[in-house]
Amino acid sequence: MITKNKRIELIDKSLKLLKKAHIIIKPKEARSIETADFGLGEPERTGLQLVVYLNTGRCCAKELIMLPEQTCPQHRHPPVANEPGKEETFRCRWGKVYLYVEGKPTAKPKCRPPKGSEQYYTVWHQIVLNPGQQYTLAPDTWHWFQAGPKGAVVSEFSTKSRDEADIFSDPRIRRQTVTAN
Amino acid sequence: MITKNKRIELIDKSLKLLKKAHIIIKPKEARSIETADFGLGEPERTGLQLVVYLNTGRCCAKELIMLPEQTCPQHRHPPVANEPGKEETFRCRWGKVYLYVEGKPTAKPKCRPPKGSEQYYTVWHQIVLNPGQQYTLAPDTWHWFQAGPKGAVVSEFSTKSRDEADIFSDPRIRRQTVTAN
Repeated sequence: MITKNKRIELIDKSLKLLKKAHIIIKPKEARSIETADFGLGEPERTGLQLVVYLNTGRCCAKELIMLPEQTCPQHRHPPVANEPGKEETFRCRWGKVYLYVEGKPTAKPKCRPPKGSEQYYTVWHQIVLNPGQQYTLAPDTWHWFQAGPKGAVVSEFSTKSRDEADIFSDPRIRRQTVTAN
Repeated sequence: MITKNKRIELIDKSLKLLKKAHIIIKPKEARSIETADFGLGEPERTGLQLVVYLNTGRCCAKELIMLPEQTCPQHRHPPVANEPGKEETFRCRWGKVYLYVEGKPTAKPKCRPPKGSEQYYTVWHQIVLNPGQQYTLAPDTWHWFQAGPKGAVVSEFSTKSRDEADIFSDPRIRRQTVTAN
């Protein structure tokens, strides 16, 4: 659970990162930034902040805002209602993000999972995204990502987003977001 | 038809606008910016420059780069292969764009169609997009748009893009793009 004060702090840090990335959002969007701690209670370590621009029945666009070394935990997007799982593309706009996907494990990966959660991180094929670089993830494949030392701002372009359908490898995780104070 | 020299000039101007918008693209993306003159041979008046980030079978993301007062002519995206027409959202990142859609005509619209093409511009409900503002267009509805006096950079988030299926109100138009020198 994210307390009101913690949420204010996470939003404040997120707005500073958006400013560094020169991404303009409306005051209403700033107030409704999603803050997720995935139920683990340590959002600076396992967490994510999001501005959802649109999520219609057909497509979705968001900015993901990540604090330094913040981790979005390992998950996949399964098929729902006769549709293949969510297809998503991450495009780094500012900072640096390390994305881990299924495939040949990288010999010396740059990131470590958050302490105490190591056993739930099982895919180790590393993709590094600097500003202007992007990667499209196949539907229903395991992935996780972690920001570099300065944080990151990443545009996500995808099919319809259904967070409640996501499957996490860590059974302790609850996909909670807070969007209002 | 856009000549090689004209294409170089349009790309050069587009890169300057992207720089003002602080949007980073890869050198390969810069070289393959799409330049469209819609077959009218006056790309600074009726034209558009595009960076296509992705266009899979399911979704699409682009940056539209518009020179000062450049116009994307009136068109719609019809249903294709049992799918509703393309659904698109425009989010202004830099500059200003005037979008015209079906609906109650705006009493004093800010823009005029390119000279000689007036008769093909028939929808006049005006939506003004400044940075951070966005609009989602219903599929298969007429629309056109024109940049403000400094130009504009606009992110487009949409379902699959099929330019060849677009229907233009001006029968002279050919949806041509040039992506290589």
